[in-house]
Amino acid sequence: MSIRIGILGYGNLGKGVEKAVNANEDQELTAIFTRRDPLSIKPVSGRAKVFHVDRLPEMEDRIDCLVICGGSATDLPKQTPKYASSFNVVDSFDTHANIPSHFAAVNEAALSGGKIGVISCGWDPGMFSLNRLYAHSILPDGRDYTFWGRGVSQGHSDAIRRIEGVKDARQYTVPVQKAIEAVRAGEDPELTTRGKHTRECYVVAQEGADLARIEKEIKEMPNYFADYDTTVTFISEEEMKEKHSELPHGGAVLYSGHTGDRKHVIEYSLKLDSNPEFTGSVLAAVARAAYRMNREGQKGARTMFDIAPKYLSPLTDEYLRAHFL
Amino acid sequence: MSIRIGILGYGNLGKGVEKAVNANEDQELTAIFTRRDPLSIKPVSGRAKVFHVDRLPEMEDRIDCLVICGGSATDLPKQTPKYASSFNVVDSFDTHANIPSHFAAVNEAALSGGKIGVISCGWDPGMFSLNRLYAHSILPDGRDYTFWGRGVSQGHSDAIRRIEGVKDARQYTVPVQKAIEAVRAGEDPELTTRGKHTRECYVVAQEGADLARIEKEIKEMPNYFADYDTTVTFISEEEMKEKHSELPHGGAVLYSGHTGDRKHVIEYSLKLDSNPEFTGSVLAAVARAAYRMNREGQKGARTMFDIAPKYLSPLTDEYLRAHFL
Repeated sequence: MSIRIGILGYGNLGKGVEKAVNANEDQELTAIFTRRDPLSIKPVSGRAKVFHVDRLPEMEDRIDCLVICGGSATDLPKQTPKYASSFNVVDSFDTHANIPSHFAAVNEAALSGGKIGVISCGWDPGMFSLNRLYAHSILPDGRDYTFWGRGVSQGHSDAIRRIEGVKDARQYTVPVQKAIEAVRAGEDPELTTRGKHTRECYVVAQEGADLARIEKEIKEMPNYFADYDTTVTFISEEEMKEKHSELPHGGAVLYSGHTGDRKHVIEYSLKLDSNPEFTGSVLAAVARAAYRMNREGQKGARTMFDIAPKYLSPLTDEYLRAHFL
Repeated sequence: MSIRIGILGYGNLGKGVEKAVNANEDQELTAIFTRRDPLSIKPVSGRAKVFHVDRLPEMEDRIDCLVICGGSATDLPKQTPKYASSFNVVDSFDTHANIPSHFAAVNEAALSGGKIGVISCGWDPGMFSLNRLYAHSILPDGRDYTFWGRGVSQGHSDAIRRIEGVKDARQYTVPVQKAIEAVRAGEDPELTTRGKHTRECYVVAQEGADLARIEKEIKEMPNYFADYDTTVTFISEEEMKEKHSELPHGGAVLYSGHTGDRKHVIEYSLKLDSNPEFTGSVLAAVARAAYRMNREGQKGARTMFDIAPKYLSPLTDEYLRAHFL
């Protein structure tokens, strides 16, 4: 029998989860749930049911895991604990400083309902986190370096769009190649924020806007751009649509470790055509794990650190040992 | 209280485990056990106790996990099941075709004694296996490629040494760079054995030996060399000692996956100054996991697929979530 998945929230990530669930032979999509008018939603696959989120409570017996695809700023802190008492849930919460409190809230709800709630899944947090953990566990004498990009940062793109005179914007985070090379070479460099990433901004300005002011405001924006070497390129709406409508991303976790005077470099890298489709694929795999762990009697909050890798796979333990080991 | 580790077998791998245990603040080395005369063993760290293997049975209460460092051909199939009924054990069994039967034998012994036995740990099998599993679980539409090297293959070096007229030999397995590049570029190439790796052989011949015959015998050796582009270089004993006395290794698992028409490339690579010291470090981390899982009441055979990543780390769940997620 298939694992029945519900999707809450239908932005880019929700669409990525839908595509992943449809690609997984052991899963089926029960429905998409939205705060908007369900009739306004056109599912990518064409065949999914769409309900208003108010109907979720009556679906408890028809969903094995609910994948919550809201934003970390305001949606997930409310939604994940709210639904974790009635459903196995998975989210991609990524506000780093608030992970402990989010975990505690989800844990309380999930324990009360006898469910599993897995938070902070995706690639960072997610697969990158796992690689930091494995590397540190194997080689305690060492340090990790995380590079992001080349890829679109939606947070940074949004920040530019809020500037007066900006019609549209896309920001690419770009790792500094020579910094990566230094880590790969085992040089254990000390890297500044500026030394790790640069930021490329493509901006469509409103007609007659003061381009010099916009560029200055971007480059001096604290936290987002001030600590980076930032380039600003003004382009037309047509060029934006043609060249910058995809959401590629990726990056690498490098670990430079030592056993005495011998060096070891571990590198995990991702090159993703679509950030939301890859992240959605991770969430779908974790939804499988959440359901299986709960079926075995486990309950409470989890992260990917707590999940034995085999639970993510639809294949049997015997098959995995014979073919993947 | 420290986790008390025993090491059975004191070759290169046993020495690597010793170094790793000494580097782990939460572990202590109870003793090294050997089939040789204990007085003939000089531990790397100088301070370890060395006992004959016959004394292992009386040490049950003094060892939390026994790391078994024998060879896969003849040692481990006997040793791991033999000791898994009295000790939590970890091994690096890597004879692929026999993993199911080895797992079954260790499982029976470990269940009978209420212990945990983790087989096939290291980097391949081990970390590379985990990366194959994670990638396939996230993106079911895709394929994995494993490349080994540049590094010393001890099996291939030994095979050359058995040829008449060969005094010493070292064989490096070298991945074909353009094959790696094709996978990275998302080309999903079909690769032959010859297209993935080349083999570089450095040989010290006995005085007066027929070099042409030796080279021919190497290049035509079935399984080991016949299917590869192989180069043979004759060198002096001095050069062998000077340039080829280390055991570096590494490699990469690449996964080329798809979500519809979008491509995603996942790459995990290792560049290791010392194969046995890195493998030994993995075994020490898994020994920690084996002990902790057993203390929680788990028993039976396991592979790294069955181990939630957090068990490998000495750090608390709270710390891991706050700092590594």
